[in-house]
Amino acid sequence: MMRTHYCGQVTEALTGQTVTVSGWVHRRRDHGGVIFIDLRDREGLLQCVFDPDAVEAFAAADKLRSEYVVKITGRVRPRPAGTENANLSSGKIEVLGKEVELLNKAETPPFHPDDETVGEDTRLKYRYIDLRRPQMQKNLKMRHDVVKQIRTYMDTNGFIDVETPILTRATPEGARDYLVPSRTHAGQFFALPQSPQLFKQLLMMSGLDRYYQIARCFRDEDLRADRQPEFTQLDVETSFMTQDEIMKMIEGLVVGLWKDTLGVDLGTLPHMSFEEAMRRFGSDKPDLRNPLELVDVKDLVTDVDFKVFSGPANDPKSRVTALRVPGGADKLSRGQIDGYTNFVKNYGAKGLAYIVVKEWSTKGRDGLTSPIVKNIHDAALTSIFERTGAVDGDVVFFGADTYKVVSDALGALRLKIGNDLGLTAGGWRALWVVDWPMFEWDDKEGGRWVSPHHPFTAPKVQSADELRNNPGTVLSQGYDIVLNGVEIGGGSVRIHRPEVQQAVFDLLGIGADEQQEKFGFLLEALSYGAPPHGGLALGLDRMIMLMVGGQSIREVIAFPKTQTAACPLTNAPGMVDARQLRELHIKSTVPAKDAAKSSTPA
Amino acid sequence: MMRTHYCGQVTEALTGQTVTVSGWVHRRRDHGGVIFIDLRDREGLLQCVFDPDAVEAFAAADKLRSEYVVKITGRVRPRPAGTENANLSSGKIEVLGKEVELLNKAETPPFHPDDETVGEDTRLKYRYIDLRRPQMQKNLKMRHDVVKQIRTYMDTNGFIDVETPILTRATPEGARDYLVPSRTHAGQFFALPQSPQLFKQLLMMSGLDRYYQIARCFRDEDLRADRQPEFTQLDVETSFMTQDEIMKMIEGLVVGLWKDTLGVDLGTLPHMSFEEAMRRFGSDKPDLRNPLELVDVKDLVTDVDFKVFSGPANDPKSRVTALRVPGGADKLSRGQIDGYTNFVKNYGAKGLAYIVVKEWSTKGRDGLTSPIVKNIHDAALTSIFERTGAVDGDVVFFGADTYKVVSDALGALRLKIGNDLGLTAGGWRALWVVDWPMFEWDDKEGGRWVSPHHPFTAPKVQSADELRNNPGTVLSQGYDIVLNGVEIGGGSVRIHRPEVQQAVFDLLGIGADEQQEKFGFLLEALSYGAPPHGGLALGLDRMIMLMVGGQSIREVIAFPKTQTAACPLTNAPGMVDARQLRELHIKSTVPAKDAAKSSTPA
Repeated sequence: MMRTHYCGQVTEALTGQTVTVSGWVHRRRDHGGVIFIDLRDREGLLQCVFDPDAVEAFAAADKLRSEYVVKITGRVRPRPAGTENANLSSGKIEVLGKEVELLNKAETPPFHPDDETVGEDTRLKYRYIDLRRPQMQKNLKMRHDVVKQIRTYMDTNGFIDVETPILTRATPEGARDYLVPSRTHAGQFFALPQSPQLFKQLLMMSGLDRYYQIARCFRDEDLRADRQPEFTQLDVETSFMTQDEIMKMIEGLVVGLWKDTLGVDLGTLPHMSFEEAMRRFGSDKPDLRNPLELVDVKDLVTDVDFKVFSGPANDPKSRVTALRVPGGADKLSRGQIDGYTNFVKNYGAKGLAYIVVKEWSTKGRDGLTSPIVKNIHDAALTSIFERTGAVDGDVVFFGADTYKVVSDALGALRLKIGNDLGLTAGGWRALWVVDWPMFEWDDKEGGRWVSPHHPFTAPKVQSADELRNNPGTVLSQGYDIVLNGVEIGGGSVRIHRPEVQQAVFDLLGIGADEQQEKFGFLLEALSYGAPPHGGLALGLDRMIMLMVGGQSIREVIAFPKTQTAACPLTNAPGMVDARQLRELHIKSTVPAKDAAKSSTPA
Repeated sequence: MMRTHYCGQVTEALTGQTVTVSGWVHRRRDHGGVIFIDLRDREGLLQCVFDPDAVEAFAAADKLRSEYVVKITGRVRPRPAGTENANLSSGKIEVLGKEVELLNKAETPPFHPDDETVGEDTRLKYRYIDLRRPQMQKNLKMRHDVVKQIRTYMDTNGFIDVETPILTRATPEGARDYLVPSRTHAGQFFALPQSPQLFKQLLMMSGLDRYYQIARCFRDEDLRADRQPEFTQLDVETSFMTQDEIMKMIEGLVVGLWKDTLGVDLGTLPHMSFEEAMRRFGSDKPDLRNPLELVDVKDLVTDVDFKVFSGPANDPKSRVTALRVPGGADKLSRGQIDGYTNFVKNYGAKGLAYIVVKEWSTKGRDGLTSPIVKNIHDAALTSIFERTGAVDGDVVFFGADTYKVVSDALGALRLKIGNDLGLTAGGWRALWVVDWPMFEWDDKEGGRWVSPHHPFTAPKVQSADELRNNPGTVLSQGYDIVLNGVEIGGGSVRIHRPEVQQAVFDLLGIGADEQQEKFGFLLEALSYGAPPHGGLALGLDRMIMLMVGGQSIREVIAFPKTQTAACPLTNAPGMVDARQLRELHIKSTVPAKDAAKSSTPA
């Protein structure tokens, strides 16, 4: 037997007993002719002491080095008074070592697991050492615990865990697919699923009633901080439940997770319409911890001389909004304000109008600092300040452009200023965003309707005709769950009538042939007795990242990829034999020597 | 609200209450001016009755057809005496329908969910209808329950569920890999994992101590009845446990599953060496329910005139064995025996010698019917019958050839005769097969050592030198768990010392460059403090197939592929745009029109 206890489980309750522990040499110290070994395993650290009296054990301990793997047997005794370590579960005791067995040597590792300063490239290359860090062990443990709690909740509510295929057809989530050439069907390809969307709907048509899966999903996108080529979602679908019932069910799960895992009460989640979220926060995933809000002033500036305002103010498709920063006159430097002008340009804004309200109450117009006020008449200024609540000492920023540009730019600015000024409160604020538009008009390529969610989302109207007649105004039965400004999940009631599904495909400009080719099986399945159904997916990686206070989902994934979608540990992707490609009926278009070069870690 | 109860949950306890149920119209009957609707959902069938008195509901019920999706509200009442159905949980009651809401119509489906006679191609194409069958619902539910119980067991034993990558490097399980071209690393490819083997070993080097995962695995093989391109295994790895401790832990799981799911006590699993299994049963996965055994007679026939026997008997690499079939003289027809001769040819045997022992006790040699006895002297015959226990009325079959051919052929014949004669008992017989050879000699391509398990399996010797000196005799710390002749899982203690791992690679003929290229990261990781570790994988699909008494793992997989690795439901694999392939730096070698043709379901 290699252990009687984990290191972290050896406490004063075992005083006087003989224990056997196995683990890694975390530190080795000589002190006063005695050898101290801090032994580490999954559950913690244990101090083992070797006296020269125990000749053999002492000699063996003397040879131990950092990260050696070793088995130690000894007697548990109290630490000498004054040497206790309150930070360790085993901090009141130590083990007087009697036997040492070296299980494996270790070369000096590229970094010590304690070292928090190592760059991520190195940490990913030696991930097995990185994962020895207590924080990473804690993250993986937390992930395990959260998944376990999710499963218990879903089981209790009658959901059945069903595995859906990884080798499947291209799905229409809109991102790029990972493809897998078929050997047995020459010239054809599987796609890795961007989500199990269609399979879970088919399971509803199978009468399974309630399905869930902790599902791996794949998107071949250019990666940002919180994206990975493969990620994991809690995937849920139910039959015969209304939108409100589904949301309540999922809310029970999320609230329970935060309560049981972090001791946090998220309360009852407010429902906010997409329209309100965009209007007040310029975002479909508003961070409610941030007190700043957008206030529309379009109607107040239709007749000002400042064309940057009056132009959009007279265009029904545009938006003019104000963002008041209380106390901004003192808190924001001129340099910061200039910086914000550049910042909003990232979101398509042409510039950033602002008014520093210094002494408006006493000096009126002369009490304002602003490049724009000279062309805005008094009545407009007065009503803007009135509506935004601006008083002396505030700064008011403005956005005036298309609805989308203004919302994106001022929404982002709101977050940035909230962070810069430390306005964003701690804690947790969650909400549902509902009443999404069924379609949005995309001006690109001559203009076309697109789905904010996906084309299987049900409209809030019953008939295909109502939908066809009002594509721009019909709302959908979609819902997103947002926590601290992060979309942690989203879903919808689905279309369960074939003629409605077809109308949506038509409106999205998917021709009859493409409908048949890509979705023929879905339309057919809808015609053979499809129940009303709906569901949702929660981003597991993101949720757990939030829970552990991480900055990237890479911190909660055991073996993540880099931002260029590579694994520095295994050197994936890699070269393959030409013979393998021949069997798969494909050819690389890259000369082998260039391909080998592209494996250089980026 | 669309339901107050599932159909199967409406029992006599609810008599007099009003319930709302939703589901599928399983049958609709007119009988005596009354309409009967058998409504079906996941939990069962419920008889709903519509009287002409309830005018609106009756009219609505009148329009219902098979597989329509409908919501019915009504009062629960006892069925008239004599019309109860003891086969249904709801068989004592019926619902007197008051309201009917049609939720969705259905075209006449291609087959009725009750119909067990539909061919598998059709069932897979309309899998969502096939899955409505009670047996399929039961299979998926059983799978859910088993996985849940597995997770509980693993959690209780301190195992942590960790997800490992699907986009990874080629792994060395020996089957063909599915490949995924990389877009960001031109000319390079990911492989889908044949198992998470190396990642779980790396997790042990990470100090995670105990890992498990319900893991999807991928093998691009030509498919047999019990193979799928993607399949699922319970993947387990632990540190600091011995082979016996690991086996005991897994045995606890399997025994518990059979006990709790089927009420079957598997008992304590016997351990049988690979050598004994091959010797007695000609198989490394013996079905112990079958009472027939092979008995080696090589030493008895070294000097017979029958060269087919004496040749192999004098060759140290060959085997001569006997299979006695008690009572075979009456039970086996001449035609059957001839059939067996052809049967064993499938396993490489050149023929099948046999002796029908008719009246040996009274007539001696004249009491035998056999094409071979004239060249076998009396002493040999006597000792063969003595050793095999053959008496009048038995048939003895013989195999004489290389060890492998004899074992394969007679092992298979043993199973076939056991089935043909109904000798194989019902019930469940499980065992561990242990003491596998570390290497087997493969005569192909000039001869080389191969691993019966995989190259990470630890030998039963400690040092690399001992291994190098005795590759042909060293045993491994591998173990397979076998149930009713099906290998449901296998594993091993792994190599944790880099020099031993390297010796194994060397013996397998993996050159230094290939070692570095494919396994450099593993050898490096082993050098930085790798604990003793080992684990196992259980084939989840196969286990559940056995549990539900299925004939193919396709019966326990929601959306399986056909034997040509295609999905007739979604038509995967499919054609993709040339643009997509360009982005992935590959070209199809198949003209588009031929590729399209290859999508014809095979």
